Amino acid sequence: MDRMRVLNGHIRSEDVTDDGSSPLQIAPTLATPGYEGFQHAQTMASFPPAAHDVFRFDDLLTQEERDIRYRTRAFMEKEVAPVIADYWEHAAFPFELVPRMAKLNLGGATIKGYGCPGQSVLGTAMAVIEIARVDASMSTFIMVHNSLAMLTIGLLASEEQKRELLPDMASLKKIGAWGLTEPSNGSDASALQSTARKVEGGWVLNGRKRWIGNATFADIIVIWARSSETKQVNAFIVRKGMKGLRTSKIENKIALRCVQNADIFLDDCFVPDSARLPGVNSFKDTNKVLAISRIMVAWQPVGICAGVFDMCVRYVGEREQFGAPLGSFQLVQEKLARMLGNIQAMFLMCWRLSKLYEEGKMTHELASKTKAWTTLRGRETVALGRELLGGNGIVADFLVAKAFGDMEAIYTYEGTYEVNALVAGRGITGKAAFKAAPSRQPKYVQA
Amino acid sequence: MDRMRVLNGHIRSEDVTDDGSSPLQIAPTLATPGYEGFQHAQTMASFPPAAHDVFRFDDLLTQEERDIRYRTRAFMEKEVAPVIADYWEHAAFPFELVPRMAKLNLGGATIKGYGCPGQSVLGTAMAVIEIARVDASMSTFIMVHNSLAMLTIGLLASEEQKRELLPDMASLKKIGAWGLTEPSNGSDASALQSTARKVEGGWVLNGRKRWIGNATFADIIVIWARSSETKQVNAFIVRKGMKGLRTSKIENKIALRCVQNADIFLDDCFVPDSARLPGVNSFKDTNKVLAISRIMVAWQPVGICAGVFDMCVRYVGEREQFGAPLGSFQLVQEKLARMLGNIQAMFLMCWRLSKLYEEGKMTHELASKTKAWTTLRGRETVALGRELLGGNGIVADFLVAKAFGDMEAIYTYEGTYEVNALVAGRGITGKAAFKAAPSRQPKYVQA
Amino acid sequence: MDRMRVLNGHIRSEDVTDDGSSPLQIAPTLATPGYEGFQHAQTMASFPPAAHDVFRFDDLLTQEERDIRYRTRAFMEKEVAPVIADYWEHAAFPFELVPRMAKLNLGGATIKGYGCPGQSVLGTAMAVIEIARVDASMSTFIMVHNSLAMLTIGLLASEEQKRELLPDMASLKKIGAWGLTEPSNGSDASALQSTARKVEGGWVLNGRKRWIGNATFADIIVIWARSSETKQVNAFIVRKGMKGLRTSKIENKIALRCVQNADIFLDDCFVPDSARLPGVNSFKDTNKVLAISRIMVAWQPVGICAGVFDMCVRYVGEREQFGAPLGSFQLVQEKLARMLGNIQAMFLMCWRLSKLYEEGKMTHELASKTKAWTTLRGRETVALGRELLGGNGIVADFLVAKAFGDMEAIYTYEGTYEVNALVAGRGITGKAAFKAAPSRQPKYVQA
Amino acid sequence: MDRMRVLNGHIRSEDVTDDGSSPLQIAPTLATPGYEGFQHAQTMASFPPAAHDVFRFDDLLTQEERDIRYRTRAFMEKEVAPVIADYWEHAAFPFELVPRMAKLNLGGATIKGYGCPGQSVLGTAMAVIEIARVDASMSTFIMVHNSLAMLTIGLLASEEQKRELLPDMASLKKIGAWGLTEPSNGSDASALQSTARKVEGGWVLNGRKRWIGNATFADIIVIWARSSETKQVNAFIVRKGMKGLRTSKIENKIALRCVQNADIFLDDCFVPDSARLPGVNSFKDTNKVLAISRIMVAWQPVGICAGVFDMCVRYVGEREQFGAPLGSFQLVQEKLARMLGNIQAMFLMCWRLSKLYEEGKMTHELASKTKAWTTLRGRETVALGRELLGGNGIVADFLVAKAFGDMEAIYTYEGTYEVNALVAGRGITGKAAFKAAPSRQPKYVQA
Repeated sequence: MDRMRVLNGHIRSEDVTDDGSSPLQIAPTLATPGYEGFQHAQTMASFPPAAHDVFRFDDLLTQEERDIRYRTRAFMEKEVAPVIADYWEHAAFPFELVPRMAKLNLGGATIKGYGCPGQSVLGTAMAVIEIARVDASMSTFIMVHNSLAMLTIGLLASEEQKRELLPDMASLKKIGAWGLTEPSNGSDASALQSTARKVEGGWVLNGRKRWIGNATFADIIVIWARSSETKQVNAFIVRKGMKGLRTSKIENKIALRCVQNADIFLDDCFVPDSARLPGVNSFKDTNKVLAISRIMVAWQPVGICAGVFDMCVRYVGEREQFGAPLGSFQLVQEKLARMLGNIQAMFLMCWRLSKLYEEGKMTHELASKTKAWTTLRGRETVALGRELLGGNGIVADFLVAKAFGDMEAIYTYEGTYEVNALVAGRGITGKAAFKAAPSRQPKYVQA
Repeated sequence: MDRMRVLNGHIRSEDVTDDGSSPLQIAPTLATPGYEGFQHAQTMASFPPAAHDVFRFDDLLTQEERDIRYRTRAFMEKEVAPVIADYWEHAAFPFELVPRMAKLNLGGATIKGYGCPGQSVLGTAMAVIEIARVDASMSTFIMVHNSLAMLTIGLLASEEQKRELLPDMASLKKIGAWGLTEPSNGSDASALQSTARKVEGGWVLNGRKRWIGNATFADIIVIWARSSETKQVNAFIVRKGMKGLRTSKIENKIALRCVQNADIFLDDCFVPDSARLPGVNSFKDTNKVLAISRIMVAWQPVGICAGVFDMCVRYVGEREQFGAPLGSFQLVQEKLARMLGNIQAMFLMCWRLSKLYEEGKMTHELASKTKAWTTLRGRETVALGRELLGGNGIVADFLVAKAFGDMEAIYTYEGTYEVNALVAGRGITGKAAFKAAPSRQPKYVQA
Repeated sequence: MDRMRVLNGHIRSEDVTDDGSSPLQIAPTLATPGYEGFQHAQTMASFPPAAHDVFRFDDLLTQEERDIRYRTRAFMEKEVAPVIADYWEHAAFPFELVPRMAKLNLGGATIKGYGCPGQSVLGTAMAVIEIARVDASMSTFIMVHNSLAMLTIGLLASEEQKRELLPDMASLKKIGAWGLTEPSNGSDASALQSTARKVEGGWVLNGRKRWIGNATFADIIVIWARSSETKQVNAFIVRKGMKGLRTSKIENKIALRCVQNADIFLDDCFVPDSARLPGVNSFKDTNKVLAISRIMVAWQPVGICAGVFDMCVRYVGEREQFGAPLGSFQLVQEKLARMLGNIQAMFLMCWRLSKLYEEGKMTHELASKTKAWTTLRGRETVALGRELLGGNGIVADFLVAKAFGDMEAIYTYEGTYEVNALVAGRGITGKAAFKAAPSRQPKYVQA
Repeated sequence: MDRMRVLNGHIRSEDVTDDGSSPLQIAPTLATPGYEGFQHAQTMASFPPAAHDVFRFDDLLTQEERDIRYRTRAFMEKEVAPVIADYWEHAAFPFELVPRMAKLNLGGATIKGYGCPGQSVLGTAMAVIEIARVDASMSTFIMVHNSLAMLTIGLLASEEQKRELLPDMASLKKIGAWGLTEPSNGSDASALQSTARKVEGGWVLNGRKRWIGNATFADIIVIWARSSETKQVNAFIVRKGMKGLRTSKIENKIALRCVQNADIFLDDCFVPDSARLPGVNSFKDTNKVLAISRIMVAWQPVGICAGVFDMCVRYVGEREQFGAPLGSFQLVQEKLARMLGNIQAMFLMCWRLSKLYEEGKMTHELASKTKAWTTLRGRETVALGRELLGGNGIVADFLVAKAFGDMEAIYTYEGTYEVNALVAGRGITGKAAFKAAPSRQPKYVQA
C-alpha cells in the first residue's frame, strides 16, 4: 500500500512483506531506545532536551516567532526523531510525515495570503532551525518548497498563477521544486544554458538541471531557462508528468540523504504561455529569491549544531569511561565550550542578518558572508560533536553522525563556501576574484 | 544462490532478480563511467593515476616491498574501484572479491610459514595503503583478519593451533575476527568484563563484545575474556555457529560501510580446552598484538589520503567553473599543496615508526603518538579534498565522500584520537591523565 | 642625558620635556608617513578608515553609547595612532597622553556620582573597543583603572572611601592598579596566599603579587589578601610610596608592551584601618568585580580585530604584487571574509552578554564562555591579518604586528582560554574539571 | 668600549654608564635564573634538556653530521641561551658571540675548500636547527651569511673572487649579506628593478633593496641588479662603506629581532668590473642559490619548535596549578602530543627533501611545498607551546614568546606561505596562479 510512497530509496514496495516486517523495521534501535546495542546511552529516538540556548534567544523574538519555534520543536522531537535516522540510512523521503507536518501551518512561510501564514523572516527561520535540529534533510525539503519554489511564485508570478498554485502548496498537498543549477554551472549559476524557445501558444524547454531537491516527486517545478529571443533568464512552471520532462535520482550521497535530489532532463518539453512567470525578466529577478533563501541556508547550521550540542550534552552525561561520565574530562569540556560559543555566535549572526533584511538594509554580500561563516563554524561544530561521541559518533542512531554528513551539503549548496567568501570579498575590496588568473604568469617567484 | 553472501546489508537474496539485475546493478553510475550524470568529470570507477608520491617513497622500500605495493595497486584499481562505491552505499561486504584478493598472497602478512608470506612490516603497510587508497573498508577487513586475528594466533597460539588455523586463513578460505572491545569499555579496553569459566574439558564464555569487524560472517573469532580463576585476560578461538554465540550487525554507519561490525553476545558459550591460546596470560600479551596493529592503523590514513589526493588532482583538471579548470584557482591550489604536504609527512611518520619497530625500538607511546597524528592530519586532508569537489564531494561515486566518511572510523578505533594523545602525553610527561579529575574542586577560579 | 632612562622601557612622565620633544620623536617612521621605508602603503600613523562595521552596530546602541564610540575613536585615531607604535617598541607607557585622554570623560565608567560618568555597560564597552582598535595596551590601562580598581571601590568601599578616592581617579589625576594574581596562583586565583594581619590601628600586609598592570606608577593599588583571622579574602587600598611596598617591572614582553606590569612585593606593609574595603568579606565579593571586568576583556578582541581588519582593507588596496593590488587575489579575499565574519560574531556575542548583564541574567559561566570564545576567534583573526601583510606584518608600524602580539595577553589574562573553557564546561556539564586526574590510572588502554 | 658593537639597536654607546650598569644589565632575569620573578619555573638562561627527538634521528645521520649537531647544541645552550633574550628585547645583534661561534667551524657550510668545511646539506641543516632551537635570529644570521652570500660566491664567482672572499667569510672575520628583495617586489622577486649600468672599468648600481638581513654591518653584500644592456639579472659584490651605498635599519619588528634587516639605497654606486660575479647571467642562476637556501629555511621551524617543545616539557613539569604540575592535565598533554607529532613530521619532511637534493632529484616545487608546510606546522606548534606557558608565554625569558614572534618571519620570508603554496600548486596542476584574476567577471554567481 502506501509504503511505496514511504520508501523511495533503493528499497521498493515489494520489499515490504505481508507480515509488516518491512526493511524499515529491521533496525529496532530507533523504535526501541532500550535496544541492547545502546544500553549505555540513549539514541536520538528519544530526543535530548534543549541545552544550547544559554543566551535566551527567546527574548529576541516576538510571541508569534516563539510559538513557531516551540510548536515546530514539539513536532520534530515527537514525530520525526523516532523514525528519521532509518529513512536517512535508506536515502528515503518520509512521505508519511508530510501530512502531519502540514498541520504546523508553515507552508508558504513569509507569503501573505493564498493560504500562507505570512510569517516574519525570523519566524520562518525559527521553523528552519527547529526542523534542522532534528533533521537537516527535512529542513532542506521545506526550504526548497517554501523559500525557493513558493517564494518565486509569491514574488514573481501573476495574480492568477498565485491563486492557482499557492493554496495547495501552502497545505503541502502539492510539493514544489526549483531548477536553477546545471551540470556545467554550479557556483557560476548565472551562466545557465537551458533554453526556452517561443512557439505558438507556449514555450519549448530544453536543457539539463542538476542537484534539484524534491524533483523526483515534486508536483510543480520552477525551471529557469534562457529565452532564445532575449537571451535573458526566464522562469517557467513545469508540472509532474509533462512530456519531455524526466528526472533521475542522485544516488550515493553522504549528506541530506532523505532529500531526493535529481538530475532533470528537459527534451523539447512544451509548456503553455500561462506557465511563464511574468515577473522574471533577467537573472536579477532570480537573485530576489536567492537573497531570502540564502538567509535561510545561513540559519540551517544553527539548527543542526543545536541538535548536535543537545545530544552531546546528554551523551557525555550518560556514557562513562575510565570510571566517570565523559563530561568529567577536560578534553570533553573544552570541546563543549567551543561548540556552545559557536552556536551562540551563529544564531546572533543570522538574527542580525534577518533584522537587516527586514529593515531593507541587507546586501547580497552580507548574506554571502554570513552563509559562508555559519557553514564554516557549523562544520567545525559538528566535527567536535562527532569527536565527543567516540565510536557512537559514526552511527546515525545518535544523530551526530547524520548531522556530520548533512553539514557537508549545506557547506556547498547555494554557493560553496569559497564562492560565498569571494562574494563577500568583492564587497570588502571592490574587486571580483571569481575568475582564474590568466595563463601568462611570471616564471620565477621568490619561492 | 551465493548472492546472499554477497549482499549482507539490508538487501537480501530475494532482491536479486532472475535476470541478474541485482540491486547492485541499479546504479549505473559506477559501472558506466559515461553515465549522463557525470559528464564533466570521471568517477572512481575509472581510478585516477597516482599523483601523490612526489617524495619518491619507492627509494625507501625493498624490491619486495615495491612489488607488494604495485601488485596490490593494480588489483585495487582494476577490480575493486569499479564496483566498491555501490557496496559502500548498501553497507554490503563484497564477498565476490575475496577469492580474487586471495591471489595477491597477502594473507598472514608478517607471519612466516603456515602458508603465510612473511612480509616485512613495511611491506605489509604497502598493501594496507594501496588497499585503503581505493577503499578503506577493504583495508580494515584485511587488517582485522591479518594483523589482529592471524597475528594473535601467529604470536600466541600453540604450534598445533597454528598448523590447524593459519593455512586456511592465509588463503582467505577462512576469515578471522577479533573480539576485544566491549560496550562499556571502548578506550579503556583493559577493563574488559567478559568471563571465561573453567569447566570440565573446556571453558564457558560469557559477555558482550561490540564493534567487532568481520564478526557477522567470520569463521574464526578470537575472543578475549577474563579468567574467573586468575582474573587475568585470556584468549580463545570461537568458531562460527557455536552454541551460545550470537552476532548482530551494527547498522547506520557513516564510515567503513562495507565493514561488517557486530555486537557479539556470548551466553554460556562452551569452547574446548584446545581453543585457549596458551601464549595469553594477561593484557600484556594483548598489547603485543596491538603494537603491530596500531602501526597498521596509523598507515591507513596515508592510503586514504593518497587516493583522495589523486582523485582531486584529476578532478580539478577536468571540472571547469567560471571558464577555467578548477585547478587554475588560487583557493584550489593552496588546498592541494596543503594536502600534499600532509601526505608526505604522514608517509614518513609511519615509515619511521615501522623502521623503529623492526629495530626493536618502538614503544607504545610512539605508536600512539603516530596513530593520533596521522588520523588528525588524515581527517584534515580528506576534508580539504571534499571541499575541492564541491557538490560532487558528497557522492560516493567520486571516492572523496566515501573517504571522508571512512576517516571518521579510523580517527576513533584502536583508541580514539584523545586516548592515543593521552598515551603519548604520558610518555612525554611521565604522568597518566586518563582518569577524570576528582569531584573536590576549587569553587572560584580566575574566570 | 636622560636617554638611558627614556629608552629602556622606564619612561616616566618627567621624561617628557617641556618643549614637547618627547622620546617619541626618535623614530621618524611613524611621525612621517611618507618615510622612504614605507612608500607602498600607509602606516598606522595615518589611521585607516573604519571598514569593519558592516552589520550596522550603531543601530544596537543608544545615542549616548554612539557618542562615546565616536569621540573615543576620534581621539585614538588622531592623538594616539601617530605615536603609539614607538612607545610599544620601547615598552614605554605614554604618560603624555593621559591628560588628553582624561578629557574623554571615561574615568569611572559605569560608576554613578563622584565625578564618574555613569555609563552603561555597553557604553563602557564602546570606549574599550575603540581604544583597543588603535592600541590594546591603552585599553588594558583604562580597564585596570576603571573596571578593576575604581569599580572595586565603587562597589565595595565605604562612602567615605569613595568620596576620597573616586573623583581624582575619575579625572585620571590618580591612577589605579589592582593586585589579585600571585606568582603561584595564576588561573587558580582564589588560592591566594598573601596575608593581612590585624594589628593596632590597621593591618600588616605580606605577600607577592604578579602581573599587576599599572603597578609601577599607580597611585592607588587595591590589594587582595587573606585575613589571618578569618582566613577569608579581604581588600585594602595601598598607596604609592608606602613603606613595605616594592614593585618591579616585568620585562621582555611580546604583548601589551605599553602596559607596565609589575611584580609587587609586600613586606610588612602597614596600612591603616581606613584602608580596608568594608564590602569585601570573601572571594565571592572579588567575583562581583570580575564579572564586569570579564565582560570588558571579552570585548577587547572585538576592538583589536576591528583595527586589524581596517588596516588590512586599506593595505590590500594599496600594496601591489604580480601586477595587481593584493585585494584582487582569491587567497586574500577569503581571509578578509573570514576575518569580517569573526568580527561581526564577536561583537554580537559581547553585545548579547552585556545586555544579559544589564538585565541581571548573566552568569559567570556565560562570561567565561564568551571571553574564551572571543579570544579564540580574536587570535585567529589577528593571525589572518598578519598573513595579509606579508613582510610588513612583522613591523609594528603597520598596526597588525602589534595587535598580533597583544592578543596573546588577552588570550591568557583574566583566566586563560583553557580555564575559562572549563568554567563554561562546568556550566554545561555540572562537573568541575579544573583539577588534574589522580595518580592511580589504568596501566593499559586501547591505545 | 666594545659595548658599542654589542648594542646596535636603539641603545648606543653613550647609553652605557661608567659603572657598567648598561641597559643590558637591568634585566637580571636571564643572567640570574634564580631571579625572584621566576621562582616557579626555570627560564631559558638555563636551557632545558632535549626531549623532542623521540624518533632517534641520529640514526639517519652520519657521524660527522651528528658531530655538527652536538657541538652546535653545546655552544648554543651554554654560550647563547643565557644572554640572547636580552639582545632580542633590545633588537640588538650579539656581536660578542660571533668570534666564539666561528670556532664551531660552520662558516661556508657546504662549500669545499677556501677554508670552508664542505659539510653535507644534512650536516648544514643540523647546525641550522640546533642554532634555531635556542635562537632563530642567530640561525638566520648564519644562513644569510652561509647559504645566501657565501654560497652565491661559491657557486657563481670566479676562482679569483672565491680565493679573495671566502676564507675571511669562512672564519666569520667578514660577514656577508645578500640583496635581492626590493620594496615593490616581495614575493615577485624576479621582477626586480635595480639597475647595473656598464661604464668604463665597472658598473654603476642604482635601486632599492628591502629586508636585507645583516646589511647594516655586513662587510660584503651581494647585490642583484638588472643589466641595462641585457635586461638580465646580474650579481655584484658591494662592500661596506662604498660610495653610493646607504643602509637604514628596519625597526619595530616582532620577529627575529636580533637580525639587523635593512633598507639598502644604491645611488650611483660604482663597483669595479671585478665585482661582477661571472656565473650570474639571468634569474635562473639566482634560483640555484635559492634552491639550497629554501631547504635551510624549511629546516628552521624544526629547530625553533624543538626548542619550544623542550622548554614546554620542562615547564609543565615545574609549574603547578590547582595542586598539580601542569603536565598532569589532559588539555596540556594533548597539546604536547600534537606538538611532538608535528616536530617529528617536520624533521622527516626536511630530511627527505635534503636527501632528494643530494641525489639531484629535488625540484623547486618540492622545496616550496616543504617550506610552506613546515612553516604552517611550525606556526601551529609554537602557538600551542605559547598556550602551555600561560602568562609566562608572553615574556621572552621563557624562550617560547621569542620563538612565537620569530616564526612569523620564517612564515613569510623566502616566499610567503601563500606564494610557496602556489609554486607547489603549479607543480601539482601544471597551471600558474600567481597573478590576479582579470577585471571582467561574472556579475551574478550562485551566492
